[in-house]
Amino acid sequence: MKGACIVGQSGGPTAVINASVAGVVLASLKNENITEVYGALNGIEGIITENIIDFRQESIEEIERLKYTPSAALGSVRFFLDDFKKNELVYIQILNIFKKYNIRYFFYIGGNDSMDSCHKINEYFKYIGYECNVFGIPKTIDNDLRLTDHTPGYGSACKFVATTISEIYLDINAYKKGRVTIVEVMGRDAGWLTASAKLASLNGTEPDLIYLPETNFDINHFLEDIDTIYKEKQKVFVVVSEGIKDKDRDYILKYRNFNNNDSFGHLQLGGVAAFLCEIISHKFGYPVRAIELNLPQRCASHLSSEADINDAYMCGLKAVEFATNNISGKMVSIVRKDNNTFDYDYVNLEDVATLVKEFPLEYINDKGNNLNDDYLDYALPLIKGESQLEFVDGIPRFAKLNKVLVNKK
Amino acid sequence: MKGACIVGQSGGPTAVINASVAGVVLASLKNENITEVYGALNGIEGIITENIIDFRQESIEEIERLKYTPSAALGSVRFFLDDFKKNELVYIQILNIFKKYNIRYFFYIGGNDSMDSCHKINEYFKYIGYECNVFGIPKTIDNDLRLTDHTPGYGSACKFVATTISEIYLDINAYKKGRVTIVEVMGRDAGWLTASAKLASLNGTEPDLIYLPETNFDINHFLEDIDTIYKEKQKVFVVVSEGIKDKDRDYILKYRNFNNNDSFGHLQLGGVAAFLCEIISHKFGYPVRAIELNLPQRCASHLSSEADINDAYMCGLKAVEFATNNISGKMVSIVRKDNNTFDYDYVNLEDVATLVKEFPLEYINDKGNNLNDDYLDYALPLIKGESQLEFVDGIPRFAKLNKVLVNKK
Repeated sequence: MKGACIVGQSGGPTAVINASVAGVVLASLKNENITEVYGALNGIEGIITENIIDFRQESIEEIERLKYTPSAALGSVRFFLDDFKKNELVYIQILNIFKKYNIRYFFYIGGNDSMDSCHKINEYFKYIGYECNVFGIPKTIDNDLRLTDHTPGYGSACKFVATTISEIYLDINAYKKGRVTIVEVMGRDAGWLTASAKLASLNGTEPDLIYLPETNFDINHFLEDIDTIYKEKQKVFVVVSEGIKDKDRDYILKYRNFNNNDSFGHLQLGGVAAFLCEIISHKFGYPVRAIELNLPQRCASHLSSEADINDAYMCGLKAVEFATNNISGKMVSIVRKDNNTFDYDYVNLEDVATLVKEFPLEYINDKGNNLNDDYLDYALPLIKGESQLEFVDGIPRFAKLNKVLVNKK
Repeated sequence: MKGACIVGQSGGPTAVINASVAGVVLASLKNENITEVYGALNGIEGIITENIIDFRQESIEEIERLKYTPSAALGSVRFFLDDFKKNELVYIQILNIFKKYNIRYFFYIGGNDSMDSCHKINEYFKYIGYECNVFGIPKTIDNDLRLTDHTPGYGSACKFVATTISEIYLDINAYKKGRVTIVEVMGRDAGWLTASAKLASLNGTEPDLIYLPETNFDINHFLEDIDTIYKEKQKVFVVVSEGIKDKDRDYILKYRNFNNNDSFGHLQLGGVAAFLCEIISHKFGYPVRAIELNLPQRCASHLSSEADINDAYMCGLKAVEFATNNISGKMVSIVRKDNNTFDYDYVNLEDVATLVKEFPLEYINDKGNNLNDDYLDYALPLIKGESQLEFVDGIPRFAKLNKVLVNKK
C-alpha cells in the first residue's frame, strides 16, 4: 500500500521520545511505500486541527539531532479519545484529514493511555473500511507498559536517577554529622523508576532505604528504620517513590490534604518526601532535607543512555518496517534475549492499552525497604553507554525543526 | 623551607572542589620543598583530632580522578574559629599537630568563612612565631568571593543550571497549555548562580522571568508579570533565587513562618518557589509547578565544565607554587585577561575573609525581572568544555581514596 505516513507524540515527554520520531522519519524517508512524511503537532490534536508539518522540509542533520533532544519536538497532548460508538465526531475529523493527505500509515508514540487512543483509531478505521496501518511506539519513563521487556525512556531516566543519587550520596557524606535526606522519584503506581536508585550500589553510593508503591508503607516501621540508622551514622539517605501507599492502598500523600487531578482524573503527586521530612523533624528533631528529582527525570537528555536512545530509535524504525509489511493495530515491543541483548517484535495494542506492568515483588527485600540485587541484572543493560549530545559554547545544541505546515506551503 | 604540607576542605561542597585537592597533591608530590603530603579529614576538625591521611598511599590514577568527583573527598566541616585572643585552645591544638608532623605548608579550600579561618590561623602562626605558609584556595558555587574574577565551582554550577533550565524549557513547552513553572536556584545573598539561567538564551530556551536577591522583589509586580505572560502564552517559566528579598531586604521566605538556622547563624532557605506557586494558585487558579534544583547544583560533576575543572585544579597547583616561594596569608585569585582567558595571582586573605562580592546591578534589567546580555560575556568562558568523567557499566566511576591515617601506619 502506497501513501503518506504521519507520526505523533502523546503523554508525558521523555529524554528519548524524539529518538523514536527520528527512527520513524528516517526509515519513512527511505521507504518506497511511503510517499510523504508528516508530523502531527501536539498528537491527535494536531491531526484534528490540521497542524501537520512536512518532514521533507527538515534537514537530515536536525532529524538525527532529535536523538539527543528531550521532550516532544512535535509537541505532546493529553487527549482522551472516547469510544467511537459513543462519539464518532473526532474519528470523522481524523478520517477526513487522513483522506485529504492520503495518510496510510499512522505512528503514535506514547504510554498506555496513548496506546488506547491508537487502538481505538485502528478499530475505527477497520469498522469504516479505511485502509491505514496503525502502529504504536512505546515510551514512558515509568516502564509500566505490558508485553515489552522495557519501554524506551526508562533506561535514560534510570541513568539520570542512578547518577544523581550517586552524586547526592557523595555530597551528603561530606559532613560527619548529616541529615535525613529523602529523595523523591516519579512513579505513580509502579516502582520501576524508584528502583533504579539501587543502581548506585554499583559504585558504592547506595541509599540506606528505598520504598516503592508496591509494598504497604508503614509509617511506624519507617520511623523506626530512620531512628536506628540516624543513631548509628548521624545521617540517613532515603529514596521514595512519589506514589508510596499505605496498607489500604491509599497514597501516603492523601494524608497531606492535597488534591489536584489531571485531565485523566489522576491525583497529582509530588511532595511526599517533604511530608515525610516534616514527620521526622517533628518526631525526632533530626535535621532533614527533601529533594524532588522532578522534571529532569524525564528530560535530562544530557544523561540519556546510549542503549535507551538506540531502543527508542529502533522502535521507530521497526514500526515503519512492520507497518509497511501490512501489519496494523500493534505496538512495537522489545524482547530480551538470553545474552541480555534485545530484539524488536510487536504485540496487540489492545493487550497493552490502559493496562499496567507490575514491578516484580521478588525484586523487593523482605522488609520492603530496599531491593534485591536481581533488579540490577534487569536494569544494567538499559543504562549502558552515554549520550553523544553536542555542546556548543558550553550548553547543549538541541534539534531545531523548521515545522513547515503542509497546508501553508 | 622544607616540610610537610596538609590540605583540607571546608564549607559546602562543589562539583570541582576535589579538583583543587588534585592540584595541591600532584604539585606537592613533585615539589622538592615538600617532604610529605597530608590530607585533613573534615577540614580543621581533622587536624585537631589527628584524622590525617597520607597521600603517598594513594594512586596517581585515583588522585587524577578527583578532578571528576563531586563533594569533598576529604570530608568537609563547618567550623567557626574564634579569634585566638579570645580562645587560644584550638590554635594550640592545631599548632601541636603541625609541629608533630613538621607541617610547613597549609592549604585550605573553601569560601569566605573558610578564608576567615585560614586568615586567623596564619595570624596565629605569625604571632607565635611558627613558620608555616598558609594559602587559601577559593571555592563556592555562589561566586561571591571578592578579588577574584570568579570562584572554582561556579562555572560547573552554571553549566548545570543552564543545561537543566534548557531541558526543562523544552519539557514544559511540549504541551500547548502549560503551567506556571518556577525553578528555584541556590544563592543566599548573591544572584550569581540564578543569573546563569540566562545562559539558556544561547540556544533559545530562556526563561520568561529571572529574579535575583539584589533587587527588591515586589509581589504585586511579580503577579502582574505572571498574569500578563500566562494570558498570552498559557504558560510561564520563572527562575528565582532562594534568597529573593523584599524592599526591607527581608527574605521573602520569612513570610512563610519558616525558621531554622545553620551553625553560622544563617537562615536555612529553600521552598520559595513552592511558596510563590501557592500564592499564584490562590490568586489566579493557574496550574503551577515548583522545581528546586537543590543539591545537584553543587554536586552534578557529570556536568562540570572543563574550564571550571581546570580553574579548580590550577588554583591548587598555584597555591603550592606560591607557598613554596615563601608567600603566606594569601588566597589564590583568578584574573581575567582581555581575551577572556585567565591568569592566577594571589590576594590577602583578610581582604576576602567573611566579605561578599556583589552581583553587578548593571547586569539586571530595569524592571528587575531579567538580565542583560552583558552577563553572558562574563559567564560564557566559565562553562566551556565538558567533563571527562568516566562511566563504567553506565554509572559514574568516581575516585576512591584509601585514606590511610598517618598515625595508624
